[in-house]
Amino acid sequence: MTNHIPETMKAAVMHGTRNISIETLPVPQIEENEVLIKVMAVGICGSDLHYYETGRIGKYVVDKPFILGHECAGEIAAVGSKVRHFKVGDRVAVEPGVTCGHCEACKEGRYNLCPHVQFLATPPVDGAFCQYIKMREDFVFAIPDALSYEEASLVEPFSVGIHAATRTKLQPGSTVAIMGMGPVGLMAVVAARAFGASNIIVTDLEPLRLEAAKEMGATYAINIREQDPYEAIQDITNGKGVDVAWETAGNPAALQSALASVRRGGKLAIVGLPAQNEIPLNVPFIADNEIDIYGVFRYANTYPKGIKFLASGIADVKKLVTDQYALEDTYQAMERALNFKNECLKVMVYPNN
Amino acid sequence: MTNHIPETMKAAVMHGTRNISIETLPVPQIEENEVLIKVMAVGICGSDLHYYETGRIGKYVVDKPFILGHECAGEIAAVGSKVRHFKVGDRVAVEPGVTCGHCEACKEGRYNLCPHVQFLATPPVDGAFCQYIKMREDFVFAIPDALSYEEASLVEPFSVGIHAATRTKLQPGSTVAIMGMGPVGLMAVVAARAFGASNIIVTDLEPLRLEAAKEMGATYAINIREQDPYEAIQDITNGKGVDVAWETAGNPAALQSALASVRRGGKLAIVGLPAQNEIPLNVPFIADNEIDIYGVFRYANTYPKGIKFLASGIADVKKLVTDQYALEDTYQAMERALNFKNECLKVMVYPNN
Amino acid sequence: MTNHIPETMKAAVMHGTRNISIETLPVPQIEENEVLIKVMAVGICGSDLHYYETGRIGKYVVDKPFILGHECAGEIAAVGSKVRHFKVGDRVAVEPGVTCGHCEACKEGRYNLCPHVQFLATPPVDGAFCQYIKMREDFVFAIPDALSYEEASLVEPFSVGIHAATRTKLQPGSTVAIMGMGPVGLMAVVAARAFGASNIIVTDLEPLRLEAAKEMGATYAINIREQDPYEAIQDITNGKGVDVAWETAGNPAALQSALASVRRGGKLAIVGLPAQNEIPLNVPFIADNEIDIYGVFRYANTYPKGIKFLASGIADVKKLVTDQYALEDTYQAMERALNFKNECLKVMVYPNN
Amino acid sequence: MTNHIPETMKAAVMHGTRNISIETLPVPQIEENEVLIKVMAVGICGSDLHYYETGRIGKYVVDKPFILGHECAGEIAAVGSKVRHFKVGDRVAVEPGVTCGHCEACKEGRYNLCPHVQFLATPPVDGAFCQYIKMREDFVFAIPDALSYEEASLVEPFSVGIHAATRTKLQPGSTVAIMGMGPVGLMAVVAARAFGASNIIVTDLEPLRLEAAKEMGATYAINIREQDPYEAIQDITNGKGVDVAWETAGNPAALQSALASVRRGGKLAIVGLPAQNEIPLNVPFIADNEIDIYGVFRYANTYPKGIKFLASGIADVKKLVTDQYALEDTYQAMERALNFKNECLKVMVYPNN
Repeated sequence: MTNHIPETMKAAVMHGTRNISIETLPVPQIEENEVLIKVMAVGICGSDLHYYETGRIGKYVVDKPFILGHECAGEIAAVGSKVRHFKVGDRVAVEPGVTCGHCEACKEGRYNLCPHVQFLATPPVDGAFCQYIKMREDFVFAIPDALSYEEASLVEPFSVGIHAATRTKLQPGSTVAIMGMGPVGLMAVVAARAFGASNIIVTDLEPLRLEAAKEMGATYAINIREQDPYEAIQDITNGKGVDVAWETAGNPAALQSALASVRRGGKLAIVGLPAQNEIPLNVPFIADNEIDIYGVFRYANTYPKGIKFLASGIADVKKLVTDQYALEDTYQAMERALNFKNECLKVMVYPNN
Repeated sequence: MTNHIPETMKAAVMHGTRNISIETLPVPQIEENEVLIKVMAVGICGSDLHYYETGRIGKYVVDKPFILGHECAGEIAAVGSKVRHFKVGDRVAVEPGVTCGHCEACKEGRYNLCPHVQFLATPPVDGAFCQYIKMREDFVFAIPDALSYEEASLVEPFSVGIHAATRTKLQPGSTVAIMGMGPVGLMAVVAARAFGASNIIVTDLEPLRLEAAKEMGATYAINIREQDPYEAIQDITNGKGVDVAWETAGNPAALQSALASVRRGGKLAIVGLPAQNEIPLNVPFIADNEIDIYGVFRYANTYPKGIKFLASGIADVKKLVTDQYALEDTYQAMERALNFKNECLKVMVYPNN
Repeated sequence: MTNHIPETMKAAVMHGTRNISIETLPVPQIEENEVLIKVMAVGICGSDLHYYETGRIGKYVVDKPFILGHECAGEIAAVGSKVRHFKVGDRVAVEPGVTCGHCEACKEGRYNLCPHVQFLATPPVDGAFCQYIKMREDFVFAIPDALSYEEASLVEPFSVGIHAATRTKLQPGSTVAIMGMGPVGLMAVVAARAFGASNIIVTDLEPLRLEAAKEMGATYAINIREQDPYEAIQDITNGKGVDVAWETAGNPAALQSALASVRRGGKLAIVGLPAQNEIPLNVPFIADNEIDIYGVFRYANTYPKGIKFLASGIADVKKLVTDQYALEDTYQAMERALNFKNECLKVMVYPNN
Repeated sequence: MTNHIPETMKAAVMHGTRNISIETLPVPQIEENEVLIKVMAVGICGSDLHYYETGRIGKYVVDKPFILGHECAGEIAAVGSKVRHFKVGDRVAVEPGVTCGHCEACKEGRYNLCPHVQFLATPPVDGAFCQYIKMREDFVFAIPDALSYEEASLVEPFSVGIHAATRTKLQPGSTVAIMGMGPVGLMAVVAARAFGASNIIVTDLEPLRLEAAKEMGATYAINIREQDPYEAIQDITNGKGVDVAWETAGNPAALQSALASVRRGGKLAIVGLPAQNEIPLNVPFIADNEIDIYGVFRYANTYPKGIKFLASGIADVKKLVTDQYALEDTYQAMERALNFKNECLKVMVYPNN
């Protein structure tokens, strides 16, 4: 059931911080329940940049030659003997975390909390800046012809927004505030639309991102260099506050203004990971107003929905792809994404072009 | 439908901080949907003490002669013309906040968030340190003979625990940590039992309270003068953490250790109101572990349950009543409660004894 | 605060079955928390027709001269002394059931189950086929200029669909089947869209209604005269079944096929009231597949959402208004709606044109 | 890591209806993530009896020599190389259905709906009337010394009750009616207690079972030979009806009275599988009263809770074991259970005594 699989492939391998070289590696061997995927598009994520720049995220340390990249899509190149749902040539999006399926978290449907997860580009598990990856069948999802590989790779950051919407039980007709218009925030705007939010208020300090947010469906864009976000939101909501706020930037001040913006009985999701541990939060406000706060870690059960939403044409997310690189230029792609955050939205690498 | 109602009554009236005098006031006139209640027992709450000592809580200021007390029970003395469910002589518990029934919060079943609530002993609404109060029929609940008036007045702090259990969706078989064993914390232990918690871990620094907690049903009592609560809870739970934690003390360190004690995917309720606004919280921990945090403000729809639980004999809550005073001695009762917190659990006033 | 209110008004009064005459009646006197509404548009509902044709619905009997009509919108003509949110001239939609706000159902947020509800055009409470009605302020909702009175009156049947979506926790991206494309079914299609359903499969036997359903947003329309609905849905869903089905027709066969169409773990709402009590349902199917079945009775907390959705232009619901009558012609309007069900969608009466 | 494992074992093998013989079979070989369990106690379930008497349940047909029995507990006899949580000698309860962990149902936490489940004693998967079975590690649960193997085997029917309680969101303080006091119904009484139900009303026609129900914690026992269950429940609840009803008998009349007994806004679980497909249900009652109906199929995520509840001594479930047989006498055990339903509650087989 395989088809013209080479024995070796090219991969962009990180050797220490800000050091990536193109190497030839063996193509992965698949197990009976796995598929081999010819990687067609990989988006660069903030976590890739963090490993690239500092060599670690929290307890995860890059201490060996390492392949980054986890927002990916491609074409099925081979299928294991027990694979039921795919054949060679199928176009697919890849959910990058393979969970155990046996632990308490998995059994309760919160598999994103599985302690045994194998997540692409999270040490020691290599990622997708290479020509082929293997993946367990159940974390691979067919995409319709209407969806490009780039869009399919955006299902990953989109999933974070969908999960935030699910965690905060976003109701149609709601008013939502989204703090931070990086790629996760921008895709969260699309998620808010998919869940039927009536008003989507966004904040950032870069005009490029605020413009992109409006294209994704934001109804109000607040430039925090020009307006106090709390006051602006009070104005927009006639002093009521928003039903739901999502902080996606990992910024303490953004988190504080997100909390302050929530109406009595409303909900807040913490999506962005701040660099510091302890952030002062207005606790009496939380208690007096019965705010719900939900931590958001990755996502679960989002891919089928995400693909469906994007395939329906809910937003033209291709516009978020501002920069495109071949695999050979992964170093340049990473440097671009790292140093020109204000000029880039999503930087994309194409390993098989 | 009335019966021997005097025209005047005695009331303990606060005139400025730490100043209470016994005065003669008219007995309240009831509306057609109200009942007149001969007050038989009133517990002193932390909020009563706060008004008494400082003259205010947040935006609520005691700026006129004022009657404290809102945890009360009594006997129906008269019923309005449209009252359907009560007759003179009925023994009742009083839910102290009368809500509008018409606002968005009321209509959604979260009437504790009603902006128009009239809450006993919250300025400018007088409280229950007096012989008679009136109350709208639907905030009055019949109690069975098995329940004393003291126990019935404890349904108020019990309600806070029941509401915390409801907000945090406490499941039977859970392990719960409750920080702070003041009366609210102690009644929260009883609530955790009523909801079927298997392990109830409590913290405080006063042996009197920790002993009382065990009598209410706590399975582990941690004296934070002797043990680090986070470490003790890790020991007890084999490093897993608790399913649910409730902070009832309004203490920043207790809140931080409550958060740290929650297992991955677990829940935290903020019940206690801290004196300071900004409390540093470990935000990456919340996000990485998908903790849910729920603010808890008073309670809704708890009285029928609370009465049922206490009437079933789930815990001998009468043991929490450590001090008893006649209405004439309300000043002494308040001073006792204020100055001997380590010797008192619940101080009770009896306006008609 | 009132403005040119006449003392009398015209009303279409039902005197026995299929007997309506236009009479002059006093304009209602409002209480302090009520508004007087100049009725601008009233839709004819199936329940109006049922009273008109048979004189009763279940235990509710028309045994006095009676005014029908409860799907209405209009202009504020006077406000009571304690009315806070409206002024004369405001354009409003009317939620037709005034609930007590004090019972257990009301306090839990399920006010549609209030046993004390006063519902327009449900004996003995008169309805809106007249020039003025009064209503308690909290059941009146301002509408934006973008919304016509006809559209605003459609918020009533729309509310049933919104409530069905809420009861069945309709998730964005879902596949939903809606049985019966009367006005409630048609507005339920709009509700499914507002909640983000990806596929909306509808059934009926009238081409007029199936066409209208497509205009409202249905993605598949099944004419049950031509196709077996169960088999058609299996085809459309590749044998999986739908996530959620709503039966809106009160038809036993439609209910059975709705149930059969639900996927394992899916949900069914019973919206339509069948004429007969006992309907055979496939109980082992319910158990084996863990189907959830939800009864739907009217709605609660839907009006603000419904107005927002329609104002957003989600569907051109004005197309559903196929017939228009002046108040003087209410009899003709009722006869038209009763006898030409296959030619009419929504028949509208305009009491002040 | 293994210990004195024989090569062969005795097994009670069904050869056609009402035909069981004791045979010698090879002891199962375990995979790396499996454990071998020395079976110490196996309860006879109604489904075992159904296969035994008729050779099939629905689409599942016994068409080869077959081992029945799925309610079991035992001792770990060997562990696979990757087993993390068990060692030889551990005492364990066995959750009898091994799910795939990869399908949509599994990933959403509803693994009882997994289409790939391998369930003990469900053709073609053999059961536990034998000396050794193997099981994937994650469906095996350690039991404390306080729990006997018989009690541990009762966690299986207990799980059905726990799942019904979870599906119907049983709240502490509720009034619940349970129809049918077979072993599942009796253990459901214990589940209702564990979830904090205040009133537990049960129905059956056998005094033996009604007495057992009282011992398990039922507060009212209705013999349907003597009382109409609907009327009796109306009496007990002062005409209000129950918050929640569970039908466990698979009896159409019991299901109808269960539905009729539910209060407005209440919930019904369908636990028992009726022999016939189409059962007439009062559909207008469901709609008018917004009843929720939940199908219940087996259970998910119940074993840790079930073990905890039984270990806490919540009910003396050992009293439900009325009959005890050695493995050699499995035929007699089955005949006893089949023919003397009114004398037996739970019939237990001990394969290694």
